[in-house]
Amino acid sequence: MKNREVVIIGTGLTKFGERWNQSLRDLIAEAGVKAVEESRIKGKEVDALYVGCMASGRLICQEHIGALVADQVGLNPIPSTRVEAACASGGAALRTGYLAVASGEHDTVVVGGGEKMADISTGRVNFALGGAGDQETEIFNGATFAGIYALMARKHMQEYGTTEEQLAEIAVKNHENGAKNPHAQLRRKISIEEVMKSPPVSDPLKLFDCSPITDGAAAVVLTTKEKAKGKKYIEIAASEQASDTLSLSNRRSITKLEATEIASRNLYRKTGISPSQLDFVEVHDCFTIAEIMAMEDLGLYEKGKAAEAVENGETRLSGKIPVNPSGGLKSKGHPVGATGVAQAVEAYKQLTGEAGKRQIENAELGLAHNVGGSGATAIVTLFKKQEASR
Amino acid sequence: MKNREVVIIGTGLTKFGERWNQSLRDLIAEAGVKAVEESRIKGKEVDALYVGCMASGRLICQEHIGALVADQVGLNPIPSTRVEAACASGGAALRTGYLAVASGEHDTVVVGGGEKMADISTGRVNFALGGAGDQETEIFNGATFAGIYALMARKHMQEYGTTEEQLAEIAVKNHENGAKNPHAQLRRKISIEEVMKSPPVSDPLKLFDCSPITDGAAAVVLTTKEKAKGKKYIEIAASEQASDTLSLSNRRSITKLEATEIASRNLYRKTGISPSQLDFVEVHDCFTIAEIMAMEDLGLYEKGKAAEAVENGETRLSGKIPVNPSGGLKSKGHPVGATGVAQAVEAYKQLTGEAGKRQIENAELGLAHNVGGSGATAIVTLFKKQEASR
Repeated sequence: MKNREVVIIGTGLTKFGERWNQSLRDLIAEAGVKAVEESRIKGKEVDALYVGCMASGRLICQEHIGALVADQVGLNPIPSTRVEAACASGGAALRTGYLAVASGEHDTVVVGGGEKMADISTGRVNFALGGAGDQETEIFNGATFAGIYALMARKHMQEYGTTEEQLAEIAVKNHENGAKNPHAQLRRKISIEEVMKSPPVSDPLKLFDCSPITDGAAAVVLTTKEKAKGKKYIEIAASEQASDTLSLSNRRSITKLEATEIASRNLYRKTGISPSQLDFVEVHDCFTIAEIMAMEDLGLYEKGKAAEAVENGETRLSGKIPVNPSGGLKSKGHPVGATGVAQAVEAYKQLTGEAGKRQIENAELGLAHNVGGSGATAIVTLFKKQEASR
Repeated sequence: MKNREVVIIGTGLTKFGERWNQSLRDLIAEAGVKAVEESRIKGKEVDALYVGCMASGRLICQEHIGALVADQVGLNPIPSTRVEAACASGGAALRTGYLAVASGEHDTVVVGGGEKMADISTGRVNFALGGAGDQETEIFNGATFAGIYALMARKHMQEYGTTEEQLAEIAVKNHENGAKNPHAQLRRKISIEEVMKSPPVSDPLKLFDCSPITDGAAAVVLTTKEKAKGKKYIEIAASEQASDTLSLSNRRSITKLEATEIASRNLYRKTGISPSQLDFVEVHDCFTIAEIMAMEDLGLYEKGKAAEAVENGETRLSGKIPVNPSGGLKSKGHPVGATGVAQAVEAYKQLTGEAGKRQIENAELGLAHNVGGSGATAIVTLFKKQEASR
């Protein structure tokens, strides 16, 4: 039923980290310009912009991010629209841009995402991020996202015997990958001992179980397969999105994200792909426990079996199914509005063979998984290598 | 090139005003449920939600509005996404939902919009609304939106001889229409004298030149023409969006919104419709001067000629081209995220002959015009009456 096939012809990523000298508009523009350059198109070929951004209102007193970005990159008067789905804002912008091209409305769109988080105190950032949860039942009562994911971790431990050491394995593996990613925020290897000795944030989660606070932006250029002829590209083979209750208290289970299960099952059904065919996945590891749940919810492992697979090295770059080759949110960093778009950038790099020291051999199919809040939004996107015949 | 024709089969609107006992989620759910009921569809027939909301982060500490709404109306796990384009958030959500149906991805979507503004002080609301402008060059330096539009008004007066009394005519006409709209916030007729004697807000704009601060929500159900067979519907004949510089200081002219000009010219060109064929328009009259500029920018009147036409009664319900039959933002109210969707609700009511005391006779074509900030975003949507043969 889809009108046209949609592909990615170029990508841009800023260095993730504490970018004291750049504003949000600088960062998104930097990523967008890089993406346009890599695509070898001219600015005037861009028909529209979609921008993922979660909390710019509270973080930098600025809404209207679509117009802000169009203005900064000098692409007025093309339409430019912000999409928000908490920490899945980037994935939601990607999906919206994808539908805009698939619909026939636009031929070429740039999807960007960004967040400027380091300028205000950690406490205020935490409170702003709380906007992803249920203000009335959770955040108003003092819950933080570390606290919410700590509840999930504790329950996962109780139900499946998951250990703190196994959570630490996630952080170690992601730092190992991130150390190979020049755009990553925390580019150093760490040990299980370092994670275990890091200060508690919300028991059982420690500092090194948490993704950092990050400034950064990402962008991709989407166009039709027809327009991409002669260019290097990857296909967006499918995009699915699902929702769940905003508050953890209304869920049947807190050891899985049902929205992830539903979105990925829909994607597998519609494409005929099974999880075992995937060559890598980029998952939403805002906390280490989130990566364990994602592996299970995406159907890569049975419920309760993911942690062991991590211990066995199955999800390392050289393993059976590499998870977060980019370093993930944990090591690469998590500028919330950028994250879903940055996952697509990694998919492009892996599937075009440009991932450098973290390249996965013969990668042909990759999946990105972007989560809003504690799972009230989940977006999964399937990326496919350009066919050799082209 | 568009895949499928998209129609509106039902609408919902809350009472606009100070809704002390309802939260944002209550309001959007109320509008959404009404729209689903009017459409005579079941909740399970809804494939996705799109929600326009501008500043919920700063107004009520809540982001992730897509998920919030899906949760509140019990429509999990369908995808639900928030779209933000400042005061054009509703129009942007409508356009995004329209593209989602046109693309073939979804058959039936509900587009909602809402804002909860009355719970915090006017000063803080003003500061939150400032997020629609340029924080770095305008708002940080003390500009408010009344101030920004006052600059436009003063320059329009200087260039075209527009008078304060002519601005007042806009308020009087819109209150006259709003008095006939049961959902309007300010349902009473006012006189030129009352407007002229109202307290100054930002010279030359007075209190009665400004749209009020409003709680409220609106929703419409979109589906394909095929699925709408046997139902009462109106067509979305076209949707166009354009952007301009975020800050007024970078514009070539401040007596027009170039984004409105460009979006409407694109719409006329693509559809072959000329402004003289329109039976009514709903324009973005956040301030009275904005309605004058909109009439000119949309090509209904030559530059500098709109004010006189208003004085001559040409834009009243019984006039040549009724403007803001709903009462507009001025009288109906302006819950920013809802406004663009509420304009579509009015178009549906007018084009299905259900507009009651404010019904425009033989209306067949209507246009809605939604603006973000001081014109950095403009979205125009063309609505067409259902053909008689169906």
